[in-house]
Amino acid sequence: MRRPIFLLTDFGYRDYYVAAMKAIILSINPGAEIVDITHNVAPWNISEGGFILWQIIPHLPKNSIIVGVVDPGVGTDRRNIIIETRNHFLIGPDNGLLYPAAHRDGLERVFEINIETHLYKHEISSTFHGRDIYAPTAAYLSKGVRVEELGRLINLNSIISQAWPNPEVKTDGLIAYVIHIDRFGNIITNVPGALYDKVADKIKSVKYSDKEIIVEKVTVFGEIKRRELGILIGSSEMLEIVGNMKSAAEILGGVKPGDRLILLFR
Amino acid sequence: MRRPIFLLTDFGYRDYYVAAMKAIILSINPGAEIVDITHNVAPWNISEGGFILWQIIPHLPKNSIIVGVVDPGVGTDRRNIIIETRNHFLIGPDNGLLYPAAHRDGLERVFEINIETHLYKHEISSTFHGRDIYAPTAAYLSKGVRVEELGRLINLNSIISQAWPNPEVKTDGLIAYVIHIDRFGNIITNVPGALYDKVADKIKSVKYSDKEIIVEKVTVFGEIKRRELGILIGSSEMLEIVGNMKSAAEILGGVKPGDRLILLFR
Amino acid sequence: MRRPIFLLTDFGYRDYYVAAMKAIILSINPGAEIVDITHNVAPWNISEGGFILWQIIPHLPKNSIIVGVVDPGVGTDRRNIIIETRNHFLIGPDNGLLYPAAHRDGLERVFEINIETHLYKHEISSTFHGRDIYAPTAAYLSKGVRVEELGRLINLNSIISQAWPNPEVKTDGLIAYVIHIDRFGNIITNVPGALYDKVADKIKSVKYSDKEIIVEKVTVFGEIKRRELGILIGSSEMLEIVGNMKSAAEILGGVKPGDRLILLFR
Repeated sequence: MRRPIFLLTDFGYRDYYVAAMKAIILSINPGAEIVDITHNVAPWNISEGGFILWQIIPHLPKNSIIVGVVDPGVGTDRRNIIIETRNHFLIGPDNGLLYPAAHRDGLERVFEINIETHLYKHEISSTFHGRDIYAPTAAYLSKGVRVEELGRLINLNSIISQAWPNPEVKTDGLIAYVIHIDRFGNIITNVPGALYDKVADKIKSVKYSDKEIIVEKVTVFGEIKRRELGILIGSSEMLEIVGNMKSAAEILGGVKPGDRLILLFR
Repeated sequence: MRRPIFLLTDFGYRDYYVAAMKAIILSINPGAEIVDITHNVAPWNISEGGFILWQIIPHLPKNSIIVGVVDPGVGTDRRNIIIETRNHFLIGPDNGLLYPAAHRDGLERVFEINIETHLYKHEISSTFHGRDIYAPTAAYLSKGVRVEELGRLINLNSIISQAWPNPEVKTDGLIAYVIHIDRFGNIITNVPGALYDKVADKIKSVKYSDKEIIVEKVTVFGEIKRRELGILIGSSEMLEIVGNMKSAAEILGGVKPGDRLILLFR
Repeated sequence: MRRPIFLLTDFGYRDYYVAAMKAIILSINPGAEIVDITHNVAPWNISEGGFILWQIIPHLPKNSIIVGVVDPGVGTDRRNIIIETRNHFLIGPDNGLLYPAAHRDGLERVFEINIETHLYKHEISSTFHGRDIYAPTAAYLSKGVRVEELGRLINLNSIISQAWPNPEVKTDGLIAYVIHIDRFGNIITNVPGALYDKVADKIKSVKYSDKEIIVEKVTVFGEIKRRELGILIGSSEMLEIVGNMKSAAEILGGVKPGDRLILLFR
């Protein structure tokens, strides 16, 4: 069975870290197919990494292996885990990073990786588990080694979960939380498409800090004509606040992930 | 027939967008070979993306598939097209992005992609055609699906063309247009090698805004010794203004794509 | 024999340069397996590129081909070489870039590439040997062409070597040299693990310019609790000065590669 390996880390594109993981994977499984998700997760930002994994997972080919490494606790007593979901395996630290994606695909079983077997090196670096634990684990799974040989089953409910807050509907507006700002400055919020559909007619403006800007309800960027900002359901099926060839995050004065916005009703 | 897929976008390296395209391609054609051209085209900059495609196309293996996505009009009525050229297929929006490269390789036929067939998802995102239209189109072509099954033939002359201006030879100099600044600060102009050969002997200096700097005519960066700036025919066979381990764009005071320069005659 | 090709350059991720190399490789050897090490080496920084190759080489699968291009002297009389080491081939300019990695793996033979054969294009760009010389050389080697057909044997000792300075042990401290700052702001020094083990007990603080900061001796980032900075042996088995979810280079006031630090004894 073909099992492509998808990698997400906060290692960036300047160092040898990502290539070391790929080199280890290809040493163990020369035919492995490796695809980068991104390595530009903000350093140590588990929540941003978790959201990007959540975004990509519904699009992956069946039987993928996802390796996620955003791991400020590397080498401490946090566990190294493999999550088996309905369609895939996810590998990484037990710090919440893998949780939103795994939950979206359907959690089935969780294993704690056993590095005491002959499959792992004797000396494991205490600062680079991506290279010494997760890359070999992915390589073995991609080669057909059974997950039971790589770790021991642990309680599904014992792993660390992570979630973004729910939006709150008030009488005068919708309180939204900013999950992510993309390269174009689009503001991706925690408001799912279904909730937006219910309140869309009432929304008049977006308020961030002291700034209030009237928004246009659109379906594509190019429809924004009369106003600076539009709102639409983006490709991840979440409400996004967007500009037309301009950064919405900048128009609102520097919105960042984790910030709160109010979508004011008319 | 082996058909590698080359991708160029303005999606950057931080988001899930590029990986979503690759995941869709691998879902449809598990053996697909995918190569990144770049994803760092400046956001919405069709002209920069078009130039980079123009640069790469003569080097591609025969029978390549090029997917280009710089697409501020996504979801509006601009068409989704496949251009068949002498050696390759190009896929993307009909906004001029694909034109310079297609023209360089030799335009043969153009198809408008038909998303009404069973080959595409029922629900196509109005903001992410890279994932929902271009990636599947590339995957099907790479698998051997005939182009006629993916779209309907349209008039070759109906597509949007794009070109950089021609340089102008005046009595006292050559007016050049800046197409691109590369990572090293080399200034790539619209002056082709053949025109440069005719006037090279006469060129004395480069003038940008109020600044005039004498240039050395060289063939390699390391030959620049006496002056700060050199001119040479670069790897794309266009005139470049370059420094020796320094950014020519900075030496001249911040040259940007789209700017004009004068190469003054002695 | 499977020979994956690993690429390191200072070409960045915005231009067509890296893709041109990959396109040439795939034109010559359609089945080639290509892996990026990094293309974000600081422009023209041979010493940074050399260190990253030194870091990655012990992790590469046996029989890899490494192409390194950080090449300010492109087109001058510096030679184009292939170094055969115990396990791999390294290809690039003879300017010291390949030396530390080749030396680490064990130098065996060196060849000067002969571009006069039918294997190379008639017209070789004088500014882009990555595309016109190194990419085809890598592709031919990966296809099984013998190294003797690609170049002529030259004296092993004639190639340019490069090394970082040795640390100096003084009575009151250890003078260390900064080789690299990674994405997390970790400061990677020239102090090998073995030397650190001998003096670790004595180290009290790190001094950079006028700033002196007490350090904690740790084995993982997460152990740093009482102080701002820790020291540990990193994944490359060199002494690193690190923070806990903070950039050590910034805490010390902007440490850069090439700087000197003093690890003061108590």
